[in-house]
Amino acid sequence: MNRKATAFAPATVANLNCGFDVLGMAIDRPGDEVTVSFNDTGSLRVVQITGDGGKLPYDTDKNTAAVAIRALCDHLGERRGIDVSVAKQMPLGSGMGSSAASAVAGVVAANALLGEQLNKYDLLPFVLKGEEAATGTAHGDNVFPSLLGGIVLIRSYEPLDVISLPVPTHLYCALLHPDIEILTKQARSILPTNIPLKTAIAQTGNIAAFVAGLYAQDLALMGRSMTDLFAEPYRAPLIAEFGRVRAAAQYGGALAFGISGSGPAMFALCDSAVRAQQVGDLMLRTLQNRQISAELYVSRINKQGAKVIDVVS
Amino acid sequence: MNRKATAFAPATVANLNCGFDVLGMAIDRPGDEVTVSFNDTGSLRVVQITGDGGKLPYDTDKNTAAVAIRALCDHLGERRGIDVSVAKQMPLGSGMGSSAASAVAGVVAANALLGEQLNKYDLLPFVLKGEEAATGTAHGDNVFPSLLGGIVLIRSYEPLDVISLPVPTHLYCALLHPDIEILTKQARSILPTNIPLKTAIAQTGNIAAFVAGLYAQDLALMGRSMTDLFAEPYRAPLIAEFGRVRAAAQYGGALAFGISGSGPAMFALCDSAVRAQQVGDLMLRTLQNRQISAELYVSRINKQGAKVIDVVS
Repeated sequence: MNRKATAFAPATVANLNCGFDVLGMAIDRPGDEVTVSFNDTGSLRVVQITGDGGKLPYDTDKNTAAVAIRALCDHLGERRGIDVSVAKQMPLGSGMGSSAASAVAGVVAANALLGEQLNKYDLLPFVLKGEEAATGTAHGDNVFPSLLGGIVLIRSYEPLDVISLPVPTHLYCALLHPDIEILTKQARSILPTNIPLKTAIAQTGNIAAFVAGLYAQDLALMGRSMTDLFAEPYRAPLIAEFGRVRAAAQYGGALAFGISGSGPAMFALCDSAVRAQQVGDLMLRTLQNRQISAELYVSRINKQGAKVIDVVS
Repeated sequence: MNRKATAFAPATVANLNCGFDVLGMAIDRPGDEVTVSFNDTGSLRVVQITGDGGKLPYDTDKNTAAVAIRALCDHLGERRGIDVSVAKQMPLGSGMGSSAASAVAGVVAANALLGEQLNKYDLLPFVLKGEEAATGTAHGDNVFPSLLGGIVLIRSYEPLDVISLPVPTHLYCALLHPDIEILTKQARSILPTNIPLKTAIAQTGNIAAFVAGLYAQDLALMGRSMTDLFAEPYRAPLIAEFGRVRAAAQYGGALAFGISGSGPAMFALCDSAVRAQQVGDLMLRTLQNRQISAELYVSRINKQGAKVIDVVS
């Protein structure tokens, strides 16, 4: 029987308000699955994509999973042909790290198919290639947490310096995705090139306190540090009813609320599963009451990251 | 005999490169001493200042210790007159938190004189008043670490949110003060009002990693995170031979090197007392070889902060 491997990679919440472009967090679900197997053509092929409504490319120069897998194969000197099947289980252009999850699941599955030659930290550069294909820029704040799990800090890209931060127990996330699409490129282009030094100083204070809160398991400190002075002032107006959804999350007792990645998804962090569900329901109802359809995902923080879920040899 | 109290408050290194305006660290020595006693005039008076070369004001609206003590007395409803003696033991306008140390020692001594009605965290607003008198702006990155000891993060001023960060064991500081004066106001006025968003993002990554390094006792991570993208590019040219002194510190194996506060003092962090002395000697010799006189202070990180050293009742 033909050898094949399937991997799951979780959705992610990038930025976490105070960590624009440098912080990301993985959640337990949803996530994408990618299956890879050898073919005898000697070529990389995307043979199946499900769950994308026909929107994702089969072109291996554009499909994020394929681009990332090719980067891995080039590194390993692997010349056998590989077939790639992508099972998307989350919306596209959502701010939930959709393209990142496919790239990560692809690389993790391919690494398993090829005999687990590399560990997860070794895989960082290849998942970054996949993200670059999707968004045009090599940002790791979705791919790295999807790969490694937990809350991840990217200090530097050259050289790559990625730090796994501790995740407080009892931390849960309510993630609400309104059915509107915002392209990452568009959300990025509306940001200013320059910002006041004062704003930058305030944000450094917030992210430093956020990290301290994580280590000290001080959820209150963590929550009050999660303010976004860089992107939210510009991006929130793109998201219908953002202010009302925020008010609902605060009313429900969320530790923090903000835009997930570049949106339109919004997230709330909570100190229990029960509260995350309650807060999520309040957020969802706020949109539904205004005839905006949306999907709600309530989940633990994912500490494990991407994982191989099936290998047939 | 007339009741009196004397307190010591340590010098401080503000900013720590990656934490412009939000981080500060106390060192064991040098530091200032302030003695306070009751007088029967009902007025606050500065009766003696030593070690300042005649430069500091006796005017209680301008002297940092007096301003801070008055703020404390106003808060406590204290109407007795107090005499203040300041023993300066560090250079002025040095970037070592000189004015801050006097303000802190004054408030801590006065609090002891008045029966220790407040704890250290309660004293934060009053020491800030003293700093404001000295520099025109209420920055806490010298006064708070001088008061509390250790490495201190100021997340916010309104409301005041001050976090004591853990200090790795075996952390030592070499502090070199060249005999030139830079006024804080001047050092501040040359900074740009706006900075590139990219620069701000890089600094948030650095300070977040620095805090992670402190908690994880990862000195290498801490060291490579201590980059100053906000102030150093503008302030370093004000300090003679800054580049050569940095090279000496790096050659000697310092974990990090930078401008202390707004300069001209420069600091190096090291992983042992022996190395801090060696690095400090290399830095000092670099200046001496170019006919620039300077003082070197090698010290542990001060974890205790300001302390009452004598009470006579």
